Amino acid sequence: MTAGSERERQLFDRLVAMRRELHEYPELSMEEYETTGRIRSWLEEAGVPVVSFPGLATGVVAEITGGLPGPTIALRADIDALPIQERTGLPFASKTDGKMHACGHDFHTASMIGAVILLNERKQELRGTVRVLFQPGEELAVGAQAMIQAGCLDGVSAIFGMHNKPDLPVGTVGVRPGPLMASVDRFEIDVIGVGGHAGVPNKAVDPIVAASHIVTGLQSIVSRNVSSLHNAVISVCSIHGGSAWNVIPHKVTLEGTVRTFQIEAREAIPGHMKRVAEGTAAAYGAEAELRWYPYFPAVDNDDRYTELVGAVAQELGYETVRAEQTLGGEDFAVYQMQIPGYFVWMGTSGTEEWHHPAFTLDERALLVSARYFARLAQSALERWT
Amino acid sequence: MTAGSERERQLFDRLVAMRRELHEYPELSMEEYETTGRIRSWLEEAGVPVVSFPGLATGVVAEITGGLPGPTIALRADIDALPIQERTGLPFASKTDGKMHACGHDFHTASMIGAVILLNERKQELRGTVRVLFQPGEELAVGAQAMIQAGCLDGVSAIFGMHNKPDLPVGTVGVRPGPLMASVDRFEIDVIGVGGHAGVPNKAVDPIVAASHIVTGLQSIVSRNVSSLHNAVISVCSIHGGSAWNVIPHKVTLEGTVRTFQIEAREAIPGHMKRVAEGTAAAYGAEAELRWYPYFPAVDNDDRYTELVGAVAQELGYETVRAEQTLGGEDFAVYQMQIPGYFVWMGTSGTEEWHHPAFTLDERALLVSARYFARLAQSALERWT
Amino acid sequence: MTAGSERERQLFDRLVAMRRELHEYPELSMEEYETTGRIRSWLEEAGVPVVSFPGLATGVVAEITGGLPGPTIALRADIDALPIQERTGLPFASKTDGKMHACGHDFHTASMIGAVILLNERKQELRGTVRVLFQPGEELAVGAQAMIQAGCLDGVSAIFGMHNKPDLPVGTVGVRPGPLMASVDRFEIDVIGVGGHAGVPNKAVDPIVAASHIVTGLQSIVSRNVSSLHNAVISVCSIHGGSAWNVIPHKVTLEGTVRTFQIEAREAIPGHMKRVAEGTAAAYGAEAELRWYPYFPAVDNDDRYTELVGAVAQELGYETVRAEQTLGGEDFAVYQMQIPGYFVWMGTSGTEEWHHPAFTLDERALLVSARYFARLAQSALERWT
Amino acid sequence: MTAGSERERQLFDRLVAMRRELHEYPELSMEEYETTGRIRSWLEEAGVPVVSFPGLATGVVAEITGGLPGPTIALRADIDALPIQERTGLPFASKTDGKMHACGHDFHTASMIGAVILLNERKQELRGTVRVLFQPGEELAVGAQAMIQAGCLDGVSAIFGMHNKPDLPVGTVGVRPGPLMASVDRFEIDVIGVGGHAGVPNKAVDPIVAASHIVTGLQSIVSRNVSSLHNAVISVCSIHGGSAWNVIPHKVTLEGTVRTFQIEAREAIPGHMKRVAEGTAAAYGAEAELRWYPYFPAVDNDDRYTELVGAVAQELGYETVRAEQTLGGEDFAVYQMQIPGYFVWMGTSGTEEWHHPAFTLDERALLVSARYFARLAQSALERWT
Repeated sequence: MTAGSERERQLFDRLVAMRRELHEYPELSMEEYETTGRIRSWLEEAGVPVVSFPGLATGVVAEITGGLPGPTIALRADIDALPIQERTGLPFASKTDGKMHACGHDFHTASMIGAVILLNERKQELRGTVRVLFQPGEELAVGAQAMIQAGCLDGVSAIFGMHNKPDLPVGTVGVRPGPLMASVDRFEIDVIGVGGHAGVPNKAVDPIVAASHIVTGLQSIVSRNVSSLHNAVISVCSIHGGSAWNVIPHKVTLEGTVRTFQIEAREAIPGHMKRVAEGTAAAYGAEAELRWYPYFPAVDNDDRYTELVGAVAQELGYETVRAEQTLGGEDFAVYQMQIPGYFVWMGTSGTEEWHHPAFTLDERALLVSARYFARLAQSALERWT
Repeated sequence: MTAGSERERQLFDRLVAMRRELHEYPELSMEEYETTGRIRSWLEEAGVPVVSFPGLATGVVAEITGGLPGPTIALRADIDALPIQERTGLPFASKTDGKMHACGHDFHTASMIGAVILLNERKQELRGTVRVLFQPGEELAVGAQAMIQAGCLDGVSAIFGMHNKPDLPVGTVGVRPGPLMASVDRFEIDVIGVGGHAGVPNKAVDPIVAASHIVTGLQSIVSRNVSSLHNAVISVCSIHGGSAWNVIPHKVTLEGTVRTFQIEAREAIPGHMKRVAEGTAAAYGAEAELRWYPYFPAVDNDDRYTELVGAVAQELGYETVRAEQTLGGEDFAVYQMQIPGYFVWMGTSGTEEWHHPAFTLDERALLVSARYFARLAQSALERWT
Repeated sequence: MTAGSERERQLFDRLVAMRRELHEYPELSMEEYETTGRIRSWLEEAGVPVVSFPGLATGVVAEITGGLPGPTIALRADIDALPIQERTGLPFASKTDGKMHACGHDFHTASMIGAVILLNERKQELRGTVRVLFQPGEELAVGAQAMIQAGCLDGVSAIFGMHNKPDLPVGTVGVRPGPLMASVDRFEIDVIGVGGHAGVPNKAVDPIVAASHIVTGLQSIVSRNVSSLHNAVISVCSIHGGSAWNVIPHKVTLEGTVRTFQIEAREAIPGHMKRVAEGTAAAYGAEAELRWYPYFPAVDNDDRYTELVGAVAQELGYETVRAEQTLGGEDFAVYQMQIPGYFVWMGTSGTEEWHHPAFTLDERALLVSARYFARLAQSALERWT
Repeated sequence: MTAGSERERQLFDRLVAMRRELHEYPELSMEEYETTGRIRSWLEEAGVPVVSFPGLATGVVAEITGGLPGPTIALRADIDALPIQERTGLPFASKTDGKMHACGHDFHTASMIGAVILLNERKQELRGTVRVLFQPGEELAVGAQAMIQAGCLDGVSAIFGMHNKPDLPVGTVGVRPGPLMASVDRFEIDVIGVGGHAGVPNKAVDPIVAASHIVTGLQSIVSRNVSSLHNAVISVCSIHGGSAWNVIPHKVTLEGTVRTFQIEAREAIPGHMKRVAEGTAAAYGAEAELRWYPYFPAVDNDDRYTELVGAVAQELGYETVRAEQTLGGEDFAVYQMQIPGYFVWMGTSGTEEWHHPAFTLDERALLVSARYFARLAQSALERWT
């Protein structure tokens, strides 16, 4: 297919239509029932085989079996939206109050359907199989795990994926070996005191004072305990305690997340947090209980594919730049715990950061990304043999 | 009326029945509609004149005009209950889930009705008028103000009141000139930052860190800024911010109360708090807004009546002790801002502190208190002339 | 002796001369050798018997044995000066650089010599014995203990003393039963971390961060753990750690003092401080060691003498006021641990607070105080019998 | 010169002797008078021309003018020792109490003399000039600036240097483009309160409480304000305030250092610190004054030479590894502010980290380093043309 051809224009128009329809009907993580139906019917319309994985309530898997023997590789797009009230003013803005494709997963989905369509057209020349995962529940960090448990990764040798990047122009691909996005863990800390009369604090144990000292103390973990050669964030994102202005409560609950690129930091931080929380609570006669919910490690790109992901971009006339790291996380990392993988930034000339109510992107990136991943899958299979 | 007489036993039985009925049907502050109805009908049954004050939705005023000329003095009982789930296991426990007479205002009400009945019997010998205020909304600190605005204090020369005291035995009256209960004020502090992605705190202004430093900093006001010869409590009783584990919120709200006996401390503390809150917020690039809600000053007993309130107890064969101060507050103080007043502890041999779900008292104190206030009112009028 | 008589004028002149000589030659605590010599020779000049107590390097004890039988009571004056550079500009200012009678012990000494002289004149009418303690080392809180160990309190039934009070006018005596001056204790806290390179804090344990959290945490003891009905001060007065700008030190040392009127607070605070220090240090991987140096309890006036100390003032035409408490301390309390005692404020119409480089007083208070303590001793003996 | 030749053995023995003599007579920064004398006479012995730069009290500059025309490049070794008490037990341990070559500058000096000797032998083939800077005062971060001011860098096109690295084996060179060692700045913060009596904190402004809150607050700059993609350390290394256990002081002084690799962080941190210090001080009624002493930027290797510094190592049969970064600093960075430069790690199979009292190294690295820098200088000149 020639760039700029009539065929391409038709595909582009189709992808724009899909993306806008997805955008109008956003669904939250693990509730992507209509989205799943749409993807499935669009794939069937295009004559692309869909594989069933029992146990997957939402999400779709397409599979293109090439005309030539070879390994199986996977492409992945995430499909869920966010609990955010859209404020873009777009004609195809979300029709559901309080839900929005504010992270561009509508773009991920539509452009990857484009890649599948292109791969299906050139199926005969493929040296192996391309499985394409339309993954639910990325925002809750549960979808990749669900797909793996359903068997979607069985027999797959490598996986590739991308995230749109508003601050890169359309036609630019961000590439970086090693850690790209941070590991993500969640924590809760209960600070337990003894409630009492606001006027008689000496008969109570004030959990608000203890919790406040814990929050200030937690800052010292990044500033003092994590190597300054490493990158880590500890954010307490919620603090709640007390239900009256004149009663000392018995409990305060902190909740937050830890992000880092380095496994040493990821492993050491829970111990530091437990030490700060328990020691500080004890200092005030209170107790602290840290609950740790490990989510997923850093997105860590396998250097064996660095040359490939760059070369494919150059073949298509796209620009490559060294991808900027981010302490945001991605459950693409969960696939990488099983098999080698590579995750790139796809420039979308967007306005606003991810998760912003006015988040937008330049739809021309739809075809760029579709062509990129079709070619990447094809080349990956060719190099393999 | 002879102590232990048949007449007294009848009155005692009647007061017990009233108190238990009030206890079974607790009503929250400014919603004491049925309670108001009960008091009114009991007073009418007993032939006691009730005075109407338009503008009072709840609460009752009885007035005994003596046979001899003299000034008007007031007695006051508060009538409201608390949003607490009763756990006493009493046969006459609250019949309303989540509401309870956990501060003994049922006792205050019933015993003061007893005092009115006794005064009504000896009306002819009274040298003046006794107005008895059955006040609503003490727990919300609005009832005294409401009664004053309705005119209930017009023409009154002095006011007397009491609170049950669980740790004093029945038959004991706690007396103390000067400050007895603390001034009460309420505050709210909004700490405003800039919300953001949990992994990118450098693009946010974290209000949880700022608010935590404010809470720890506020401790230094009592420890460093208030004279150690004074008594003050600053309690932050609630802290709330954030609604997700992975999003830095833009605001944290603190709420709490300030208690003190000394006017100097009461006047200086808001400025200290503003300084700590605003300076600390600025230190973290955030903003803090302190909102101050002055409630009422300390219950401050007029020394002119110290001898009287003690002497009356002795005449009746009760014991007097020097009343222990408490940093709890009472809107009886609002009356004292207008006219001289005296507030005493009435021993009730109770179990548990005020506001406890298992708060109880010894009902024999009903008659003790009724006789005490009847005699106190009579003597106060006699001494005046 | 008649007030205003020639005899009085002579005595006054003599006391002024003594006080000025003492003021010119201040000596620090437990080094009051010349002061001791001066007092001794002035007493001998006046014919007052001096009693030797082996073991006392400095300090003097005079003793007037009355003509009538009776108990022994003690008067006490402290004699030491302070390491302060005088800036009064007085003609009789300190002749020793860096030492000054900035707390008025020169006044205490001279006026008490006046009292001894007066008592000696009326010796025959005394119903018992008056022992007068010129005590060294009050500023270091060691002198009273030294005098007791030397036996100076043996056989004494009660003790009286005073401190000049700049904000009371001459001729006014401040009287208050119960606690007047605070208990005094000293503490040190070593915060032990692990030193290291300033650029590699993750290989060190930073004791400066831990110590800072301890200081902020200590504020919560007065604000949360001490009853707000009590009075307590915890002051960290020095903090020292580190000797280079680019090396994390291994230790920080805090030093300070605790003051309170209530025995419950005095007993509970060391435990609270240990909890805060050790818990907080543990929170940062460090260790804290609290060393406690109990000094002396509150000056606590025995109410049996309240009427006496007031009556004596009235007899002499002085005014009495209710003495204001202070969280400053006085080792007069050490005597009160052994025998009953009473400590009063003696008005001196002074400028500046105690310990100020420009501290002065109105010397007319010398005769007031001399007459007061002579009469007080005489009356105390008379009432005893 | 053939590796392992007799000539090499002689040179090695000579360098070992020099290094041990330097080790025995360590001199502190900018006091390297005898060291300067030793270097100068050893160079003269070897027939190497020494250039005089008036204005340099200590330090030496050698210059080898090649037989062929070409540019001038510089090599640099630092020569000063540290105020540390040696505890190596070596026969040639420091003969001066409290001073030690604990950072291996004796090794730097001797090995660079070796390089000069080797370059002098092959002078005829050199395509340009090699200037070798024996720099004083690195530990105080003043020596590079002094040499530049004296003109030592005039006409120089590029500069190369190294630091010994105990954890790399002899024969290994650590190479890394971009930031290798951190920028170094120093700061002081005065926290000014109002001194007072320990028992009357309400009449004082306690600078110890304010300073402690500043220290805890400063931790949030790295944890919240610096991008977590960057590397920064803020260490408060000394805290001093107060001189008595019972007097609230009027001032606390903090001192410390900031290290980072990123210019954005280096530029932003002083503002953040000022905000935290001033806002926090204001919160406690105190004042804070931040004094900032910029030292030098990060050692930032010019990528143009990455291939060269690696190739030279390979030619000599040495191993190259990617150099690990460190938040330690080096005033080699000051040269890099003027001209391109490259700094490498030279493996020394040492025991203990830099600045440790038992710091040692394997002297076989002397010849390795001498050969490396001679070849590097020669190759650099050759490639230039």
